[in-house]
Amino acid sequence: MNDPVSKSPVAILMGSASDHDVMQHARETLRQFGIDPIYRVASAHRTPGLVAKLAGNSEDYGIKIFIAGAGGAAHLAGVIAAHTVCPVIGVPITSALDGLDSLLSTVQMPGGIPVATVAIGKAGAKNAALLAVEMLAINDSELRNKLLNFRKEQEEKIINTSLPE
Amino acid sequence: MNDPVSKSPVAILMGSASDHDVMQHARETLRQFGIDPIYRVASAHRTPGLVAKLAGNSEDYGIKIFIAGAGGAAHLAGVIAAHTVCPVIGVPITSALDGLDSLLSTVQMPGGIPVATVAIGKAGAKNAALLAVEMLAINDSELRNKLLNFRKEQEEKIINTSLPE
Amino acid sequence: MNDPVSKSPVAILMGSASDHDVMQHARETLRQFGIDPIYRVASAHRTPGLVAKLAGNSEDYGIKIFIAGAGGAAHLAGVIAAHTVCPVIGVPITSALDGLDSLLSTVQMPGGIPVATVAIGKAGAKNAALLAVEMLAINDSELRNKLLNFRKEQEEKIINTSLPE
Amino acid sequence: MNDPVSKSPVAILMGSASDHDVMQHARETLRQFGIDPIYRVASAHRTPGLVAKLAGNSEDYGIKIFIAGAGGAAHLAGVIAAHTVCPVIGVPITSALDGLDSLLSTVQMPGGIPVATVAIGKAGAKNAALLAVEMLAINDSELRNKLLNFRKEQEEKIINTSLPE
Amino acid sequence: MNDPVSKSPVAILMGSASDHDVMQHARETLRQFGIDPIYRVASAHRTPGLVAKLAGNSEDYGIKIFIAGAGGAAHLAGVIAAHTVCPVIGVPITSALDGLDSLLSTVQMPGGIPVATVAIGKAGAKNAALLAVEMLAINDSELRNKLLNFRKEQEEKIINTSLPE
Amino acid sequence: MNDPVSKSPVAILMGSASDHDVMQHARETLRQFGIDPIYRVASAHRTPGLVAKLAGNSEDYGIKIFIAGAGGAAHLAGVIAAHTVCPVIGVPITSALDGLDSLLSTVQMPGGIPVATVAIGKAGAKNAALLAVEMLAINDSELRNKLLNFRKEQEEKIINTSLPE
Amino acid sequence: MNDPVSKSPVAILMGSASDHDVMQHARETLRQFGIDPIYRVASAHRTPGLVAKLAGNSEDYGIKIFIAGAGGAAHLAGVIAAHTVCPVIGVPITSALDGLDSLLSTVQMPGGIPVATVAIGKAGAKNAALLAVEMLAINDSELRNKLLNFRKEQEEKIINTSLPE
Amino acid sequence: MNDPVSKSPVAILMGSASDHDVMQHARETLRQFGIDPIYRVASAHRTPGLVAKLAGNSEDYGIKIFIAGAGGAAHLAGVIAAHTVCPVIGVPITSALDGLDSLLSTVQMPGGIPVATVAIGKAGAKNAALLAVEMLAINDSELRNKLLNFRKEQEEKIINTSLPE
Repeated sequence: MNDPVSKSPVAILMGSASDHDVMQHARETLRQFGIDPIYRVASAHRTPGLVAKLAGNSEDYGIKIFIAGAGGAAHLAGVIAAHTVCPVIGVPITSALDGLDSLLSTVQMPGGIPVATVAIGKAGAKNAALLAVEMLAINDSELRNKLLNFRKEQEEKIINTSLPE
Repeated sequence: MNDPVSKSPVAILMGSASDHDVMQHARETLRQFGIDPIYRVASAHRTPGLVAKLAGNSEDYGIKIFIAGAGGAAHLAGVIAAHTVCPVIGVPITSALDGLDSLLSTVQMPGGIPVATVAIGKAGAKNAALLAVEMLAINDSELRNKLLNFRKEQEEKIINTSLPE
Repeated sequence: MNDPVSKSPVAILMGSASDHDVMQHARETLRQFGIDPIYRVASAHRTPGLVAKLAGNSEDYGIKIFIAGAGGAAHLAGVIAAHTVCPVIGVPITSALDGLDSLLSTVQMPGGIPVATVAIGKAGAKNAALLAVEMLAINDSELRNKLLNFRKEQEEKIINTSLPE
Repeated sequence: MNDPVSKSPVAILMGSASDHDVMQHARETLRQFGIDPIYRVASAHRTPGLVAKLAGNSEDYGIKIFIAGAGGAAHLAGVIAAHTVCPVIGVPITSALDGLDSLLSTVQMPGGIPVATVAIGKAGAKNAALLAVEMLAINDSELRNKLLNFRKEQEEKIINTSLPE
Repeated sequence: MNDPVSKSPVAILMGSASDHDVMQHARETLRQFGIDPIYRVASAHRTPGLVAKLAGNSEDYGIKIFIAGAGGAAHLAGVIAAHTVCPVIGVPITSALDGLDSLLSTVQMPGGIPVATVAIGKAGAKNAALLAVEMLAINDSELRNKLLNFRKEQEEKIINTSLPE
Repeated sequence: MNDPVSKSPVAILMGSASDHDVMQHARETLRQFGIDPIYRVASAHRTPGLVAKLAGNSEDYGIKIFIAGAGGAAHLAGVIAAHTVCPVIGVPITSALDGLDSLLSTVQMPGGIPVATVAIGKAGAKNAALLAVEMLAINDSELRNKLLNFRKEQEEKIINTSLPE
Repeated sequence: MNDPVSKSPVAILMGSASDHDVMQHARETLRQFGIDPIYRVASAHRTPGLVAKLAGNSEDYGIKIFIAGAGGAAHLAGVIAAHTVCPVIGVPITSALDGLDSLLSTVQMPGGIPVATVAIGKAGAKNAALLAVEMLAINDSELRNKLLNFRKEQEEKIINTSLPE
Repeated sequence: MNDPVSKSPVAILMGSASDHDVMQHARETLRQFGIDPIYRVASAHRTPGLVAKLAGNSEDYGIKIFIAGAGGAAHLAGVIAAHTVCPVIGVPITSALDGLDSLLSTVQMPGGIPVATVAIGKAGAKNAALLAVEMLAINDSELRNKLLNFRKEQEEKIINTSLPE
């Protein structure tokens, strides 16, 4: 296996290389908060061993939170969650049915194995990162302050938006 | 693990004991054709090790075809398929969204790992069994004749149906 | 305002008293892990002041994570998230459209304000609690061990399920 | 806050600047009837304070009717409605799921806090404006006559349409 | 025609007698605000003449606002709106497809003829009445005060809800 | 009113000029069978008088069958059907929700007023014409023979299709 | 084959005996107009020969119009239409997905083979019969008068409906 | 009829020539495994005789498995299955409703006549071929080894994917 070179508290996995267009927004957002995530392709169906290895040995990689992006019958987040008690965040990627299939496959988990699902596509990828930061900020007041600043800047940007006449 | 007592060419797995109401129709139909299947609960999310063991060692159990019933984010068929090159038949079980979530989670598999999906609920369970018999009948002319008889009886029963005046 | 009598790291809010049937499963699960949550009705639409007060002053109540259950145009989780950087978990409650409306209203948040959405109904309520425990367990090895035990018991229970002949 | 320079009986708010492409049709239609609306970005999630201020102090701005355009988990109209007893008209903006999520998030309000929802996208934006004019025309016979003229011209235009041979 | 005995500023029409179960909630809510509405069955498809007469001659009946409840291919609100410039509020009634058909048939009006759509079923019927009151309150400060009281009582009731231990 | 210059047994009406792209396929198909239909824009909502006039006086125009194309809250076919006992064929035109709204608004008619609904878009427009021809052919053996020829040619064309190697 | 004892201009076929609950409403309505239809079970999938025989030899049975009721992957109407140029009316029967699957399987026919689809369930069955009568009435003024009377009585019944106070 | 020049254990049929863009992926995948399939257009609706002939006489062509691709009211797989006890694999092709109609028309088969349904579009076409190979491999260890190699290469390719920095 092509081992991750660095450890990180957040691992972003995606079902196929084509999901990178969406998932890079999660990586960018994490980097804004000073977190450089593990970032790689790992398919629940085509590389089940790799997924079980990463999820089942999260401590070896320093991983505290998983973010999983997948489309269609999007099983990646659920399969990761089956192998770890770290929080798993699922990002449904747009597919044949506009992402409705991806969303339902990610969110409708049976009682006992939770997946924290966010919105379909790019907005969801960004929010997956923010959610991971919020989780880490529960015990990290510096990170919490960064989040409060992020929110404040976001608010001001919208308040100051000017629209065409 | 609570090992299956007998070997069988067909294994029926289901995500939870509540799926038995639907999945028993698959077992009954197989028995009509003289096949007594392995029949047990195995959850993709709550017992990933059991699923990987059964799917990954199908030859040890004599299994040639898997039938998997699950509801909601129904990953069972897909997770089995990730561990075997035996044909895997998925039965979506009715859930919160009438089974639409179960259906999409089962059928929308990515290229490379197929799942043969049948109808939601009881009709699907029956057809999963028939489909398994059809697969086995490719090289078993006796079984093929049983199928032809089954079809003929089914046809006659409908032709002779009488409706209330 | 009818102030919560005790502080808790987890607050469960729900849009109407009729949501209690579902949301009690979140409370029960948290109690299994030794957490007695704040638990009350608070509507995004009918009591916006109460929601803003609880979400905007989470530190006063010791709240580290919010769980919000609502149906229909389920805005509660999103409105809480607008007022806090604590993680917010949304539970869609079944409604006129089987909960599809509740799900989409909860999960499709715009980039910038995340909500961690779980499954519709009772399974989701249980998983919301487990997800909250997973978040708290990031920095609490005792809680992490409880989660690992919970998973192990859950796995064994399924492996030992016996189905009717 | 970047205060509105003029007062108006109608305020058009939208969740993000990208909604302007749709919402400008509401502004144009209002201007056809001699009403120059307040027109600005205000997000239920990213600027909850701004929304509460505008909706909760509608009288200070002379606002009698709100029009709110938003996509995805479109909470804007509902959050405005929570803070005012002025009529609130919601325009669902097309999003990841073709606007079905926006529509359901806007229209499926709980009993007690109404939102008057119109069609998804441009047609809805135009109709939101017409609906606002109809409300104002209840007590304004001049405006009512303008509406009758608008309808008459619209009818004649369609009756006189010629189609290609 | 079976003429309404009294005039009223609000007319509630419904496509069939079976819609009364839902629509009575609109009547009850209006009565709470001192308005006794015209209340009758009138089908867009089976009594087009009656609908055109009531909508086209609203002034004769003192009608200022229409509320229309219908299910399935719910054309009633749209057909009323085609004949009047009074605001028309549409209530989708649950039907074969859980009311999704009723909702889309009511809300997706073309640009030029608005319908103010509320939620499917009982909550929508109640909100249709509140929306009508909000429209009338634009120029009626006494009614506006009643609405403010209604909101206040509603808020207090929720704040004081106690849930089972 | 801009009266039709010629009488025809089939009238094709459409809700807006933009529907011509789809509905011209109905006209073309009818012309293949020697029928030149009345063909014009007539909106259920924006020109209710025109629709009532054409539908209510079908005999004056020689109309035996109506074809109505509309999108969104597609009431046109239903409103025509309310005014005539001639068969009415509805063609749902693609709209904001891919035509699902158009389809449900057209097909889900209440018992008592039928609309014969065909597929969404171009295929539906062609089939609306064929369906009208089939109806007229019930009592016209020459037309019936043309249909049989049409079917035969269609069949041969498909049988002789060659696909790329 | 269990041959129909009498000839009739209308044949009602249904995919299974369980569809009788819905389809009897089509038979009853036809009988109100003096037409006693052929009425029997015939499955597109389980009795393809029977369906091809009835549809391909419609003249032998005096059949001018087919009505087909089926649920799920409702192919019956389409398969009949493939074998005849008589008008075929499809009635979607409620199934696992509330009849959405039945509706789409019936209505979304490819260009070249039309099916006249009516509403899901009982209302659709009644309307299928009325549509058949409308088709026959194109050349039968007595039947046309019966339809006009039916409409008039239906209208009066609704106009005279009294609702509870 | 334009007879197939060669016999093959797998026949790929598609409803129209436009389905070739998708279905060629099934042919390509089969060829990777050394199987050159029968490959032609055959419409359930427009060429019912051809479909019945191919499905009903599968032995004459050496066919052991059918793959059927169709869109909209996709009856092809079901109609083939009605005429054979060979396994039939259905590929839903994207259409007006993003392929949801094609999927439901293919998968929701009644008990008694199974269709093995795969994902919508290109991924489904590829998986249909793999599923056919899996069925043939039940009794062909060489083919089984090819499948195991295919899986291994697929896994390695994903494990070695490198993503942009």
